[in-house]
Amino acid sequence: SVNPDLASERQTASFSVEQLTALLDGGAEQTRIRRAVVEAIESDPVFSREDQYFQTQNERYEAAVRKAVHLQKKMHEMGWTEDGPEYKYIYRALSGDVAFLLHRVFMRSISVLGSDKQIAKWIPLATQHKLIGSYAQTELGHGTYLQGLETTAVFDTATQEFILNTPKISAMKWWPGDMGRSATHTVVFAQLYIHGKCYGIHPFIVQIRSLQDHSLCPGITAGDIGPKMNFEHIDNGYLLLKNVRVPRENMLSKFCEVQPDGTYVRQGSQKINYFTMTTVRISLLSDEVLTPLMKACTIAIRYSVVRRQSKLKPGEQEAKILDYQTQQEKLLPQLAAAYAFHFINDYLQELFNRGYREIQRKNFDMLPELHALSSGFKAMITQHCTAGVEICLRACGGHGYSLLSGLPSLYTKILASCIYEGENTILLLQTARFLIKCFMAASAGQPVPPSVTYLAAVKHGKCPAKNKLDFLSPDIYTEAYQHVAVRLTSSTAAKLQDLIQSGVKKHDAWNQCTVQLVQAAKAHCHYIAVKNFAETVEKLETKAGIQKIMKHLCDLFALHGIFSNTGAFLHDGYTSAAQMDMVTASYLDLLAVIRKDAVPLVDAFDFTDQSLNSALGSSDGQVYQRLYEWAQRSPTNQMSPAYERYLKPLLHNTLSKL
Amino acid sequence: SVNPDLASERQTASFSVEQLTALLDGGAEQTRIRRAVVEAIESDPVFSREDQYFQTQNERYEAAVRKAVHLQKKMHEMGWTEDGPEYKYIYRALSGDVAFLLHRVFMRSISVLGSDKQIAKWIPLATQHKLIGSYAQTELGHGTYLQGLETTAVFDTATQEFILNTPKISAMKWWPGDMGRSATHTVVFAQLYIHGKCYGIHPFIVQIRSLQDHSLCPGITAGDIGPKMNFEHIDNGYLLLKNVRVPRENMLSKFCEVQPDGTYVRQGSQKINYFTMTTVRISLLSDEVLTPLMKACTIAIRYSVVRRQSKLKPGEQEAKILDYQTQQEKLLPQLAAAYAFHFINDYLQELFNRGYREIQRKNFDMLPELHALSSGFKAMITQHCTAGVEICLRACGGHGYSLLSGLPSLYTKILASCIYEGENTILLLQTARFLIKCFMAASAGQPVPPSVTYLAAVKHGKCPAKNKLDFLSPDIYTEAYQHVAVRLTSSTAAKLQDLIQSGVKKHDAWNQCTVQLVQAAKAHCHYIAVKNFAETVEKLETKAGIQKIMKHLCDLFALHGIFSNTGAFLHDGYTSAAQMDMVTASYLDLLAVIRKDAVPLVDAFDFTDQSLNSALGSSDGQVYQRLYEWAQRSPTNQMSPAYERYLKPLLHNTLSKL
Repeated sequence: SVNPDLASERQTASFSVEQLTALLDGGAEQTRIRRAVVEAIESDPVFSREDQYFQTQNERYEAAVRKAVHLQKKMHEMGWTEDGPEYKYIYRALSGDVAFLLHRVFMRSISVLGSDKQIAKWIPLATQHKLIGSYAQTELGHGTYLQGLETTAVFDTATQEFILNTPKISAMKWWPGDMGRSATHTVVFAQLYIHGKCYGIHPFIVQIRSLQDHSLCPGITAGDIGPKMNFEHIDNGYLLLKNVRVPRENMLSKFCEVQPDGTYVRQGSQKINYFTMTTVRISLLSDEVLTPLMKACTIAIRYSVVRRQSKLKPGEQEAKILDYQTQQEKLLPQLAAAYAFHFINDYLQELFNRGYREIQRKNFDMLPELHALSSGFKAMITQHCTAGVEICLRACGGHGYSLLSGLPSLYTKILASCIYEGENTILLLQTARFLIKCFMAASAGQPVPPSVTYLAAVKHGKCPAKNKLDFLSPDIYTEAYQHVAVRLTSSTAAKLQDLIQSGVKKHDAWNQCTVQLVQAAKAHCHYIAVKNFAETVEKLETKAGIQKIMKHLCDLFALHGIFSNTGAFLHDGYTSAAQMDMVTASYLDLLAVIRKDAVPLVDAFDFTDQSLNSALGSSDGQVYQRLYEWAQRSPTNQMSPAYERYLKPLLHNTLSKL
Repeated sequence: SVNPDLASERQTASFSVEQLTALLDGGAEQTRIRRAVVEAIESDPVFSREDQYFQTQNERYEAAVRKAVHLQKKMHEMGWTEDGPEYKYIYRALSGDVAFLLHRVFMRSISVLGSDKQIAKWIPLATQHKLIGSYAQTELGHGTYLQGLETTAVFDTATQEFILNTPKISAMKWWPGDMGRSATHTVVFAQLYIHGKCYGIHPFIVQIRSLQDHSLCPGITAGDIGPKMNFEHIDNGYLLLKNVRVPRENMLSKFCEVQPDGTYVRQGSQKINYFTMTTVRISLLSDEVLTPLMKACTIAIRYSVVRRQSKLKPGEQEAKILDYQTQQEKLLPQLAAAYAFHFINDYLQELFNRGYREIQRKNFDMLPELHALSSGFKAMITQHCTAGVEICLRACGGHGYSLLSGLPSLYTKILASCIYEGENTILLLQTARFLIKCFMAASAGQPVPPSVTYLAAVKHGKCPAKNKLDFLSPDIYTEAYQHVAVRLTSSTAAKLQDLIQSGVKKHDAWNQCTVQLVQAAKAHCHYIAVKNFAETVEKLETKAGIQKIMKHLCDLFALHGIFSNTGAFLHDGYTSAAQMDMVTASYLDLLAVIRKDAVPLVDAFDFTDQSLNSALGSSDGQVYQRLYEWAQRSPTNQMSPAYERYLKPLLHNTLSKL
């Protein structure tokens, strides 16, 4: 039975939840396929996540391997294929709790970097799981700066082999997933040396474990890097190479080849590689970043209409905590952000598909813009979503702190997304470099890519809003965001030029501007996200109340951003103090409006109770019963040796009942 | 041997680290005592924390009990007593990893709430550990709002007993520490009923486990609430009472007594109780909140001078990451905040000691101010320190995400401080209520407590700063903070009054102002923290370079707050845009200045390597060696059954070497 406090929230939805779900999925047919995948996965006990919060790192790893192996069988059974419509829903349905994800990266890197001959040899073996692959790039002392990697691969013409070595401890490979315990092979990135000359970083296929008995191969030292904040199910590993020899054919050679006599030949364009890196940043957003925020919103908002605390009005029963303005102000902007990022993700996916088609036609013009957008949005969205999940966790008070709420795991996992696939600050500086370049070009009247043409149109006007309702106009707030992005970019460009003109060296000047450059990059992305949300709303069908509620969320997303960062809008007087008070008033009004639809808006994300895996967020709202039943099953409720060993001797002379 | 990249940082300290340590400790003699305690604890293998990151929740609990029992022996052996000078350093030296903390709360509640007779009976038993106590207040469905607790205690005149019951699942006691597995007794808070009339919440001593064999007493259901984000070593518990009878003498009766015929007598003042609650909020700041931030700063800053990445200048070796402005901007404000909060903590401790003396003399005048300050600063400091630890974690990239860095545990533990002992938003609203009341009183010309007299002096001037150096003047920035606090309080008071005058009911009006009330409360605390830091610096001796570096940190703390919240200062034009640019310039300049002393400033916190328990933060800077050695000891590097069970069958048909 559904908790009446939750049930009542659903009776007053201003829109069709089912139609919103279909919109999010990209059509009712997609919803149907997704649900069928979820049903097939969740009804199979091998994929159960029920005991997850009670398991040790070793148990989590073992379960992930079991699931990965079982998944092969399941896919065959269900007729799912890697290019079928179901495929993209499998990982989400498993909530990512599965091993061998790096095996796919191993395959992708061979497909992209390998010669036809190499592809013909290795891809079938990998597809049939005759080996388990990994991808060894990052080192103990080296991450983002790939040129700094220290692992060496020296070509030996006599034996036609590369000799791989880890010259010092900071050169040890560190972090590769699936490598700590599972992988038999890996792609190692190393500095190539031929006849004493260094040719830079190249990829080599290296076998690390025996296919016979899984023992480490000669010259290999490898293992697991130990406990992490999350990802307990992944065996992130370390790898130390000592005179490990691989045949000449094992250097992936689509773009560079070493000929038998040691001649180094570079062929083709490597630009496509950079493009691969940028698409990875975009492709991770959906499953690794948006889904966790949507889950956290679902859990926290459902809990907030079931939990009652203190009296809002004297004489009445204790109030639902979502009726407090402060609770609304914590949660509803996160909900709005989840929708905003869903739509910007659609926009980015579409843009990258277009970019991919252009690149196939050997047109690389879009690359710099795509790189800037993928870097900036990866950083912005991971940052916002991580902060959002933390807000949801804290908004649930003590119960949010229990692992059984599901929120701590969502948080500790999403946090990693701020670091992997490019640390966020470094990515934002990449975007900023693009912005500065385009701003200079635009100022000089040169053409710039579409997403930054607005930089050319520096206006010194004022915000035209006259009352608080004007701030519900997308034109008004979008223009305000645009103004801020232009101002931050142009003022930082000016500072940079001033420094250089005053004699500061270029790299020092850049470093002295980086804090402000990061601000400019964030403002750019925020502007595009707001603009895209507003344009998306504009295009929605007006029926079933969906456009109306999406408009409210778009307004909230935009006004929350202004309210949380008033200084950027007030700085040069574009927005006046009186207008800022209007923003605040409209923003707070919106909270009360959206609060009414809060539960239907999270219901539309359509998570099953199994996928939420949360005592607070289940669809029936029976929070206390579930917490109690679940806690009773905890291993901490088994007998502990602590009593016999320590407590009994301590209490032993107190045998009378007090 | 010390990593030369770390060693070089220590050679250029602009001040005496040892003298700064003594300043932080409150004198060289205190430093000596603290180090002796740390030495005694850390040289005893029973207190080792070496394997902590590898242990399960059950193992952590067991270790905490073992340490708690051993600590009794150790104290006896060392001659440490509960009122000796060493006592306050013990918990810090153990990094809080010890059981029976609630036993102390059990004792304190009896001392404060119990009659002389009850104290005479129970305190000796507890002191000699003839029982293990806990403290059962919070329920599954009830936290902050104590009047909402649902557990009942019905007085039975026939048997002279109270009959305790958990009427429904939301009334189950939930969270009490030491109760899940260890405690034999607890203080239960329940609604007292006599002859059918409810007298509100009262405390009762209840035995929950047998002293014979530790089995649960009749009518008791109790256990552990399961896995949490941290505090694995504490057996937070649940408790369900079914017709549990305790004698009339078990109601703690210093202030309220039930006489044999059921007559309810209230005696004495309960005000002292509220004072106890406020002092707890202050007393937790040092060990639970400041120490973790100081540890996180130590780890992240030491790592940031050892880690090198990318080239700052072409042709040079890769740069220390602390040389990047963006890294400085992440870490150095946290360092400044750690010092700011250390000094405000001193201020609050002193104020509360004075308050205590007044209350002993039956003068309760200071209570409202102390309550407002303890609430506001508990919220402000826990919030800032939690965010600070997260920033430190993320600033260490992937290695910060490893449990072996120590940072994830610091974060997941300090996060709880935002929730326990009063959820932060609720506390800030308590402070805001006081501010509004005082503002109204001050506006009406009535006297107000010292910390809020400034509210009476509403000035409409402008910030007088003329160049960026003016913003290094404490008068300039302190006044700016004061101006913002007054503005936010007065504007919210005006909104509140407007709403009420326009016919909105008082409680609705309050709720509609709460987001802004929270802002006002934060601004008030921030102002006092800045003012106190500036006044502390003023009073420091000028010798040994300490005043100078503390002045820099004070400036950084103040300017960081303005830089991060420019809108509040720009809003009504008190600070102009040109002045805000000066703030930014001074702020960024300061980063480069303080960066030079960053390592000496964290060395002064004087943490031992054992207490940091971090592969990144040790005093010798041998980061990579330590990560590798530590990872090798991880249980994830033992044989896993996953190979035989899943991997071998998967790979079984691939027995040839590829």
